[in-house]
Amino acid sequence: MTFSQATRSDILEHLKKDHLDVLAIGGGITGAGVALQAAAAQLKTGLIEMQDFAEGTSSRSTKLVHGGIRYLKTFDVEVVADTVQERAVVQGIAPHIPRPKQMILPIYDEPDATFNMFSVKIAMDLYDRLAHVTGKYANKVIPKEEVLQLEPDLNPHNLLGAGVYLDFENNDARLVIENIKEAAASGGLMASHVQALQINHDEHGKVNGVRARDLLNGEEFDIHAKIVINTAGPWSDQVRNLDNKYHEADHIRPTKGVHLVISDTRLKVPTATYFDTGKHDGRMIFVIPRFNKTYFGTTDTDYQGDFKHPEVTQADVDYLLEIMNRRYPQAHLTLADIEASWAGLRPLLSSNGSSDYNGGSKKVLSDKSFNELVTAVTQYNAGKITRSDIEKVLSQLQTAQSEKSASASSISRGSSLTVDADGLMNLAGGKITDYRKMAAGAMKKIKKILDPQLSQPLQLPDSKNLQVSGGHFDPAKVDETINEYAQVGINQGISADEAFKLANLFGSNAPQIFALADRLPAAPGLSLGETLALHYSLDNEMTLTAVDYLLRRTNHLLFEADSINKIKEPIIDEMARYFNWDAEQKQLQTQALDKAIANSQLHYLKNEVH
Amino acid sequence: MTFSQATRSDILEHLKKDHLDVLAIGGGITGAGVALQAAAAQLKTGLIEMQDFAEGTSSRSTKLVHGGIRYLKTFDVEVVADTVQERAVVQGIAPHIPRPKQMILPIYDEPDATFNMFSVKIAMDLYDRLAHVTGKYANKVIPKEEVLQLEPDLNPHNLLGAGVYLDFENNDARLVIENIKEAAASGGLMASHVQALQINHDEHGKVNGVRARDLLNGEEFDIHAKIVINTAGPWSDQVRNLDNKYHEADHIRPTKGVHLVISDTRLKVPTATYFDTGKHDGRMIFVIPRFNKTYFGTTDTDYQGDFKHPEVTQADVDYLLEIMNRRYPQAHLTLADIEASWAGLRPLLSSNGSSDYNGGSKKVLSDKSFNELVTAVTQYNAGKITRSDIEKVLSQLQTAQSEKSASASSISRGSSLTVDADGLMNLAGGKITDYRKMAAGAMKKIKKILDPQLSQPLQLPDSKNLQVSGGHFDPAKVDETINEYAQVGINQGISADEAFKLANLFGSNAPQIFALADRLPAAPGLSLGETLALHYSLDNEMTLTAVDYLLRRTNHLLFEADSINKIKEPIIDEMARYFNWDAEQKQLQTQALDKAIANSQLHYLKNEVH
Repeated sequence: MTFSQATRSDILEHLKKDHLDVLAIGGGITGAGVALQAAAAQLKTGLIEMQDFAEGTSSRSTKLVHGGIRYLKTFDVEVVADTVQERAVVQGIAPHIPRPKQMILPIYDEPDATFNMFSVKIAMDLYDRLAHVTGKYANKVIPKEEVLQLEPDLNPHNLLGAGVYLDFENNDARLVIENIKEAAASGGLMASHVQALQINHDEHGKVNGVRARDLLNGEEFDIHAKIVINTAGPWSDQVRNLDNKYHEADHIRPTKGVHLVISDTRLKVPTATYFDTGKHDGRMIFVIPRFNKTYFGTTDTDYQGDFKHPEVTQADVDYLLEIMNRRYPQAHLTLADIEASWAGLRPLLSSNGSSDYNGGSKKVLSDKSFNELVTAVTQYNAGKITRSDIEKVLSQLQTAQSEKSASASSISRGSSLTVDADGLMNLAGGKITDYRKMAAGAMKKIKKILDPQLSQPLQLPDSKNLQVSGGHFDPAKVDETINEYAQVGINQGISADEAFKLANLFGSNAPQIFALADRLPAAPGLSLGETLALHYSLDNEMTLTAVDYLLRRTNHLLFEADSINKIKEPIIDEMARYFNWDAEQKQLQTQALDKAIANSQLHYLKNEVH
Repeated sequence: MTFSQATRSDILEHLKKDHLDVLAIGGGITGAGVALQAAAAQLKTGLIEMQDFAEGTSSRSTKLVHGGIRYLKTFDVEVVADTVQERAVVQGIAPHIPRPKQMILPIYDEPDATFNMFSVKIAMDLYDRLAHVTGKYANKVIPKEEVLQLEPDLNPHNLLGAGVYLDFENNDARLVIENIKEAAASGGLMASHVQALQINHDEHGKVNGVRARDLLNGEEFDIHAKIVINTAGPWSDQVRNLDNKYHEADHIRPTKGVHLVISDTRLKVPTATYFDTGKHDGRMIFVIPRFNKTYFGTTDTDYQGDFKHPEVTQADVDYLLEIMNRRYPQAHLTLADIEASWAGLRPLLSSNGSSDYNGGSKKVLSDKSFNELVTAVTQYNAGKITRSDIEKVLSQLQTAQSEKSASASSISRGSSLTVDADGLMNLAGGKITDYRKMAAGAMKKIKKILDPQLSQPLQLPDSKNLQVSGGHFDPAKVDETINEYAQVGINQGISADEAFKLANLFGSNAPQIFALADRLPAAPGLSLGETLALHYSLDNEMTLTAVDYLLRRTNHLLFEADSINKIKEPIIDEMARYFNWDAEQKQLQTQALDKAIANSQLHYLKNEVH
């Protein structure tokens, strides 16, 4: 069965008439993970997403399955152990997506440096031990000279050396869509562009579904479900607020993270790099090579704006460029160098002190501690207490997280699973790396709720071995397998470069893509590979718009911005043929794509009219 | 040559007329360490101490050579590595004093716990690796049941288990006196009860000595020295202030630490124990068995009172008893149970954020950060900024230490070595464990200053192998050697118990003590061993008062408080015979001792008249 616009109305019909066991609201990584595990457990499963899958948040991360080495600074060894072990699990269930990547961590002799040469070695040793990393990827420290051989453009001033250790790159949006596809293949009813309007309740006040709207045609309908789980990420509070339950716990306090992409002709880093900002703000940023681009980020600023359209501001650009030009003083990067960008929200729980594992150290205080601090300073200003008294208050500050840590049913650091009095389940916060574990935690709770209603207890799948679409191959043989897949493409007449690119992108689905060559010629203006990938995605990935395809299914818009203008018309033309778009529909698509491109390329900052 | 009241006037004569190379002001562990290394370097060395050696601070610690495992919580791995390695050095140069001691670290399931069962294991593994601990003393974790077998009185509620690892007990006051004795044996002119009145300068304004007063007779005199080094601990600022230099860096901001002693019939702990206070103040306390007592502490409170007489307050007692009665709910400890106590000041540098390695986490802010925080809260109160803004300020707070870390000439964490414009050298802050290293740092600086004035460069001793008095034996064979020494005593007719006790206390000097049996009978009311030890101490340890002997040379007053009333008169009688005290002098001694006893036993809190 395909998973496409053609089957979407079918899916919606089932959502309307079936009585679901589980309905997830939100099609980011959290909802996708839950939907896959629920569907695999043979539960009648639905998921609705008001935008494209992954559009809101899960396509906007740093695109790493980061082990969080920086957490060792606060000796959060359990978090690091959990993260690095879970990273291996995710690599096992989606072996075509997270890929091992050496990371270099240059050490500068600066005040407030996160690590020095001694502590970085200890930290990396500990990190490898927690992750069971040995052999080829085992960490090492290298002296200044070797760092500069690796990265000649790196600022040598006060550079002491670097740690070299293992991290994993990720393709966040594809991890979501592969989960969504696998859930759909397991019978899950997965629908994008469907918005929850209200939470429905039975006569006892218990949640029994939602009122929803198909945003593509405006139709409203009810979806019945025994369990409704709120996986709306930054929108979690809004979903809860449909029920006027905003007063309940786990409010989201999102922060915005910005990443900028430049050509590697402007600055080439041979290996992913992670360093202190040098701004004494306790933060670190990544500089990552991908294809022939270099991208860097992230910022970490409180965000209260429009959740659907977080924007890169001039201040974000200034912040990141200042850091980059300090670390790479010959680069002289300016706004004009930015070829693409993205801004995303982290769905941080307000009850969580430090879930920004990209380097921030947000101190979200408990109300009690916050009030104590304000009182203390006020008294100090009134001359009633001393500086020592304030320092004592400071040393006893508690984060909201620590205050409730004994009772929170946290399933992974930075996430929370709660069930409201009316039965609405909420799975909020968390890191992409932990999505499988978060979903497994939710499934345990779902089982506990549903089992009494079932003739026999629910059999939960072994989610650690539940491979996602495209990931159905041996994770111990990634390189060989991808090679084999690529060979299939080459045999079908696709260029080697493209065959490898598609094999990497689509994993075990690649042979199916290459097989399309039997019936599809290259579309006008597109290579054969591009044509086949587009058709596969239209047929099987619920790709509805050019932006869906070029931004989230392929990342073309982010990492191949220089060819985007060349390819956009042929793509839209081929999609028009596929969907039978009329001229007006084509124009709308073109406008939407141009807007996405202009946005990513920061035209509004560059003062260009497009 | 003896080191006693009999030779004191000789020492003072030399101090008056000799031209010293180095004069240390302050006879705690810092000054004692410097004096020993300076004297061993063949420098003409003097040291003056306004009270008894170690009296002000260095006799008032937790009496551990603690490795600082808790520092791992903030990943201060260098501090831990340095500390545990230096601990081994100190054990080598004073093998009769620091002794390995298993430490148990119970883990409770509580909010804000310092460690959990996972992280304590990781922390102890790391700790052992940094210290190269293996074999018999290697760490382990034990389950709750085993913890309760070890410590049946420990609160089982929320107890998860414990870490077991290696720490070292210490005898702080004896470590000082053994350094002082060794320095004296190497030609150092070491004088207690001599106070620095002013710093003297030559015609170029350079320090060339001090004006001092012998507090035993009121005589004032000058001491000439090329280098004057301020090792006055909590009094460092006062010494500097003799020159009106209080505006210079490294001000001391002492905190008070209190320890309480009870009988092990009231609460017996089989092994030293270290746990969170359970008061969510981020602190931990020790509970340590010694002889047939149990002592516990420490508090950690800002102190602005009289440096010479820090007192145990009712609040200190309440704080510690509350913790103890929570952790040992059957113990029902009250003020009446306290047999002895001591209060001491930590000479914390105000520039240092966290040198309380007994468990506090003092946050001493930089002025800049402090002002930013006060400004932010003031603006918040005025409605100008949000809570998020304050949290951002909090996440960027810098300690004074971190702010200056790039430039500070810190020779060990928490200490500083500075040279004022007039040449006054200041060695301040620091932990007892680091005294040897601090002194070695000072010696390097001294060499740098003196070398140009010398015909040939100063040869610094290898301070890592410079054994202190009583420590002249193989540190790899402590148990055998102490046994051999004890046997000498037994052969001289001393009871086995006492012979072992004295061998442990006096190390390689024990045979010399036991040899006194050839000419000394047991004094009236004293055992032979006690008599010989007293005479040895009077002859060789500059023991001038009964308090010197019973509090600092032997710790009798602290850990054998139940027999203090029995022994005090015979001790004073024997000292009166030794010193030819008249009735009035005897009465003064008795009064001073009674006052020390009453103070230690907290009579002023117990409302007893004595």
